Amino acid sequence: MRTIDWQDPATVVVVDQTRLPDELVLLEIRSVRELVDAVRRLSVRGAPALGAAGALGVALAYDEARRERWDSARLDEEIERLRAARPTAVNLGWGVGRMLRVAHEGADALAAAARALLEEESEACHAIGERGADLLADLVRGRMRLHTHCNAGALACVEWGTALGVVRSLHRRGRVRHVLVGETRPLLQGARLTAWELGHDGIPYEVVVDAAGPGLIARGEVDAVVVGADRIAVNGDVVNKVGTYPLALAASRSGVPFVVAAPESTLDPDATCGTAVAIEERAETEVTVWRGSRLTPGAARARNPAFDVTPAELVTAIVTETRLLRPADRRPRTTDAAC
Amino acid sequence: MRTIDWQDPATVVVVDQTRLPDELVLLEIRSVRELVDAVRRLSVRGAPALGAAGALGVALAYDEARRERWDSARLDEEIERLRAARPTAVNLGWGVGRMLRVAHEGADALAAAARALLEEESEACHAIGERGADLLADLVRGRMRLHTHCNAGALACVEWGTALGVVRSLHRRGRVRHVLVGETRPLLQGARLTAWELGHDGIPYEVVVDAAGPGLIARGEVDAVVVGADRIAVNGDVVNKVGTYPLALAASRSGVPFVVAAPESTLDPDATCGTAVAIEERAETEVTVWRGSRLTPGAARARNPAFDVTPAELVTAIVTETRLLRPADRRPRTTDAAC
Repeated sequence: MRTIDWQDPATVVVVDQTRLPDELVLLEIRSVRELVDAVRRLSVRGAPALGAAGALGVALAYDEARRERWDSARLDEEIERLRAARPTAVNLGWGVGRMLRVAHEGADALAAAARALLEEESEACHAIGERGADLLADLVRGRMRLHTHCNAGALACVEWGTALGVVRSLHRRGRVRHVLVGETRPLLQGARLTAWELGHDGIPYEVVVDAAGPGLIARGEVDAVVVGADRIAVNGDVVNKVGTYPLALAASRSGVPFVVAAPESTLDPDATCGTAVAIEERAETEVTVWRGSRLTPGAARARNPAFDVTPAELVTAIVTETRLLRPADRRPRTTDAAC
Repeated sequence: MRTIDWQDPATVVVVDQTRLPDELVLLEIRSVRELVDAVRRLSVRGAPALGAAGALGVALAYDEARRERWDSARLDEEIERLRAARPTAVNLGWGVGRMLRVAHEGADALAAAARALLEEESEACHAIGERGADLLADLVRGRMRLHTHCNAGALACVEWGTALGVVRSLHRRGRVRHVLVGETRPLLQGARLTAWELGHDGIPYEVVVDAAGPGLIARGEVDAVVVGADRIAVNGDVVNKVGTYPLALAASRSGVPFVVAAPESTLDPDATCGTAVAIEERAETEVTVWRGSRLTPGAARARNPAFDVTPAELVTAIVTETRLLRPADRRPRTTDAAC
């Protein structure tokens, strides 16, 4: 099943990720504004899925413009709101940009192009999964104990997944012993979404609090860390869900492979290094309140950065649908300060 | 106010830490079994407070033995249950051991000795606070942005606190800009208890998810990390709440001071190094359920190690009530493998 898809006439269908694992709800979205809302409240999330959402959203916008007789200023404005709905993931803008190149061909051509992009994304994930599995099968002997963080699975993509694509490919080969899943506070994408996907596929897993991963790596309980990425800079720095950097620090210190699985669309030619990427700071209440119940004293303030930057030299390999990059092997051309 | 205290006749009074920050409830405990239950469910927690609980518990046991006419086998058994109520914190056994040395003097002498120990613990925290503040005032210029984890405050001690003792002493000197508080999943001792204490004292703070600390340190937003300890090995390795190790890794990489504040009773002469210390693995449901509501799919398993080990070479200084240790300055005499 695809977790984001296009249905005629002009409808984007997405799995509402805020409702999992309690219930599987499909949202049928018929306007760009609804799609922007769905992206902002994380009903749709994950870098590749956001690329798909960007593309489908442009197709939706052109269809809406035709139906509602928008002028071009209104159309541009709606598309800009879509592009800016999440600031850190590069794929959203990439998906929008890809569609704008064929926009002159009209709404129907855009819908066809968006569908083609979904197909490509799906194939890319399978290619990433196989390439990542090849790499890890070389690096680790026997059945592996993997650690992943957040959700870089089918839900974050169109299907199959990036980091979970690698896990699924390894599982098909009988090479997965179990997967440790960082719960991923504050929104628990690991505990809710990755756990749901792994359970669905019968892959053994255990959820851990995010703080536990580094200590378990140090104790020799993890053979490899596999994560996705929201944006990868030119020098190989990886911007991903907050909590990725501490896993990379621990993996590096313990000599455990740290593998990033992401489509080429995640590589940002405009970001010289990771510190140049804007880190989205989300609402304080995501940290201080859980399902309507306050976790902190009433007056408490919170910081809520959604991502962190893992420096290239801590990354064993970046696996894309077309190649294997090894940023740790080369000296960064720019220092953090120079970036 | 003392967060753990003795009241005649033979009553241990403790702040129930599981009820904070919603309500301030005092438990009046009159039997060792009740005390063991309170320790296990973390109504009383924190290394120095557990030392006090160990001491008060022995006084309680001898009083109970006199009242209930226990034979010595029963008395020994109850005291052993108390000593083993939490496996990782060394202070619990230390508090029990201190009392057993004067046990031959009878129940009243034990109660007096336990009260004297509370007094000592309280003085120790003030001394730790001042020594730690002196150190940080030297290491960091101006008003500091501190990061702490879990709760090493008055609630974890008899009063004042260890890591929060340092923060309080710095705050008195006008040297605290704000404190970042790791929420400390799964039981949120940071978000609930440390936030409550800092708010109470008017010290500005912001709660962050545990995964965010390392990235904020890398971004230059933290001037020093200050934490407590549950056990410190002979080589300077620090066993503390899970999530301490990733903060130490990040601090070390960014050249940020990482200071451990703990009483001498936390130093374990029997632990050659941190990897020799048993790490308590707590119930899975602490991770998978929050206030009766399931966070994960129903069939999900979890791992729940309560502590991690920070290697000595990542520790800038250990501050106790009598001295300043700098484990990072000397080569560890034993490697992890040899320990």
